[in-house]
Amino acid sequence: MKNYIYLDNAATTKASSQAIAALNRYSDAMYYNPSASYAPALEVKRALSEASQTLASLLGASKEEIIFTSCATESNNYAFECGIKNKKGNVVVSATEHASVYESALRLKNKGFEVRFVAPNSDGTITPQNILPYIDSNTAFVSVIHCSNETGAVNDISAISSTVKKISPKAVIHSDGVQAFCKIPVNVSKLGVDLYSVSAHKVGGLKGVGALYVKKGFNMQPFIVGGGQQNNRRSGTENVCGIIGFAESAKACRKKAENFNGKFFRDIFIETLKGNADFIVNGNKENSGYILSLSFRGLRGEIISHLMEDRGVLIGLGSACSTHIRTNRVLDAMGVEKAYSNGSVRISFSPDNTEQEIRYAANALKEAVCELNEKMKG
Amino acid sequence: MKNYIYLDNAATTKASSQAIAALNRYSDAMYYNPSASYAPALEVKRALSEASQTLASLLGASKEEIIFTSCATESNNYAFECGIKNKKGNVVVSATEHASVYESALRLKNKGFEVRFVAPNSDGTITPQNILPYIDSNTAFVSVIHCSNETGAVNDISAISSTVKKISPKAVIHSDGVQAFCKIPVNVSKLGVDLYSVSAHKVGGLKGVGALYVKKGFNMQPFIVGGGQQNNRRSGTENVCGIIGFAESAKACRKKAENFNGKFFRDIFIETLKGNADFIVNGNKENSGYILSLSFRGLRGEIISHLMEDRGVLIGLGSACSTHIRTNRVLDAMGVEKAYSNGSVRISFSPDNTEQEIRYAANALKEAVCELNEKMKG
Repeated sequence: MKNYIYLDNAATTKASSQAIAALNRYSDAMYYNPSASYAPALEVKRALSEASQTLASLLGASKEEIIFTSCATESNNYAFECGIKNKKGNVVVSATEHASVYESALRLKNKGFEVRFVAPNSDGTITPQNILPYIDSNTAFVSVIHCSNETGAVNDISAISSTVKKISPKAVIHSDGVQAFCKIPVNVSKLGVDLYSVSAHKVGGLKGVGALYVKKGFNMQPFIVGGGQQNNRRSGTENVCGIIGFAESAKACRKKAENFNGKFFRDIFIETLKGNADFIVNGNKENSGYILSLSFRGLRGEIISHLMEDRGVLIGLGSACSTHIRTNRVLDAMGVEKAYSNGSVRISFSPDNTEQEIRYAANALKEAVCELNEKMKG
Repeated sequence: MKNYIYLDNAATTKASSQAIAALNRYSDAMYYNPSASYAPALEVKRALSEASQTLASLLGASKEEIIFTSCATESNNYAFECGIKNKKGNVVVSATEHASVYESALRLKNKGFEVRFVAPNSDGTITPQNILPYIDSNTAFVSVIHCSNETGAVNDISAISSTVKKISPKAVIHSDGVQAFCKIPVNVSKLGVDLYSVSAHKVGGLKGVGALYVKKGFNMQPFIVGGGQQNNRRSGTENVCGIIGFAESAKACRKKAENFNGKFFRDIFIETLKGNADFIVNGNKENSGYILSLSFRGLRGEIISHLMEDRGVLIGLGSACSTHIRTNRVLDAMGVEKAYSNGSVRISFSPDNTEQEIRYAANALKEAVCELNEKMKG
């Protein structure tokens, strides 16, 4: 396998050494079913409980508020299917959500709920001002992504939450925190959310694990029923390796984030391209630093991505969860012109990327785009 | 960690070398998101497709009929939530099901469905004769476990299926095959099922992976929606390590099953105990061979299990997914007297267990039970 420079960390991160260590321990010596009653199984159960505690601490929550799921997509489905208390209330969702929130909202709509989609600003953010016109005293559920998986734009969930609660105090606030968790500061009580979704494989854990924060006192019916695991809130034998690896990876990821300046990487790209291509940067300037969404006028994102691959650099086209869809729903909602949005790529960083890699990749992108523009002219 | 003799394989098996190899490969060098469009991600996607093919072959299915889930509990929830076409039809479920089927059935009941529970024979089986009185032309959905997770009793799903379809041709037939798959012959088309649930961690795979067979042409709405993975039938980034490990482990498990004679292990236990304890064997004699359910008169299962642990042998009390419940729902349904059922243990084998281990464990059980009986007298 060729040794690539990997700049698609928003799609999935490489598993951390912590995740792999957990994997090897809990698939081999400690493979017991945590629901069994003998001593080594109880030790596995204890390790799961510690993982809940670790994850909870990173979210500013308590461990009883953490439910492990099989992915953030399940967490988001769970939030929408089981988080709505007032069955007659309206549902307010931003138009910049990940597919798993967007499709969950459409499913509610098909069931007869009134679902209102909030248009974002041109920089991809949703502000209290954007959301205000959609809220009334009958709003039952609100979901706004914390950090956009397309552009890295960060929303002020705390301000949104207090705006909503002023008008509809009983409204349930959910946020998809997949691209925010361990990357920007996350404290669920400061955010004022009732439900918050996170994923392991965006923070160095394995694919197949996620979690849902459920605020204490919020009586949530289970989405998956059965053996009563996780205090009867999510049945099914726990993904022991994945859960313990998730918690350990998240801790390591959070630590690395403290010294990471993604803006420095972003600026290298932007400086290198400036004057050499007709492009726009999607999303607000004060974004998470982990994602750079660029749209090149008159080009095709897939072709840019292929040329980058030829040069040994892997970048994304946008959400990997939407690659089967031809248009970019989020950029469309932001009002990005088609002439640009068809030529979009998503470059996403990890603290493990080096400046040397970034400089090489930025130059490769400049070359690829210039090559394509030359061809267009010729 | 003490080196135990492990006889709780029905709760979870130790991960196979194949599963661990898949783990290490797909968490490290091949960690890419299978939905991304660059070459190494496409290679991951191909590996997933091969895993579907492997699993399909072991089930007598085609790969388009396999949907990977996060566990058999999710598969069973999916089957009940999305598998019922006739919303006004009745639902027929055996009283010997795993908690994830039983609770799914109760959820339907709470939603207003008419759910009929079929009483088993005293040996734990459900026969066409048992089920016949519950079926009418309005039966929409039938679920009968293939091999009981409590007793190892094997049900003739093929005969049940054809009996049901004669009376209600459109009835959907689901079977929970978790304890059958790779242990007894399973061919979904011979079984006549529309839906069939399996789990990785019962066949040497990791916890956190399962699958649902969905018969070709059966239009199944997704249970988890979002990015459209798995042909839009189960969204969420695939658990790559787990899925590939599942397929490889299942193949290895199936191979080992060919030369495995579980009845030989069962007989060692029964012969050793005979004359030394007042006990009954739960389940039919022609069971899967992998599970031996014993009930000792006047004793407590937990105490027997603890004494076995002191002697270095790990056994179960019954379904690990029901350990928080004080009574055994399945043994109750079979009509096992309380004086016996309170003293129940589940001993479950793997082809990796040796005759020496089994002889030691059988003697340990005899000693433990004799010790307890002595104490009762004294």
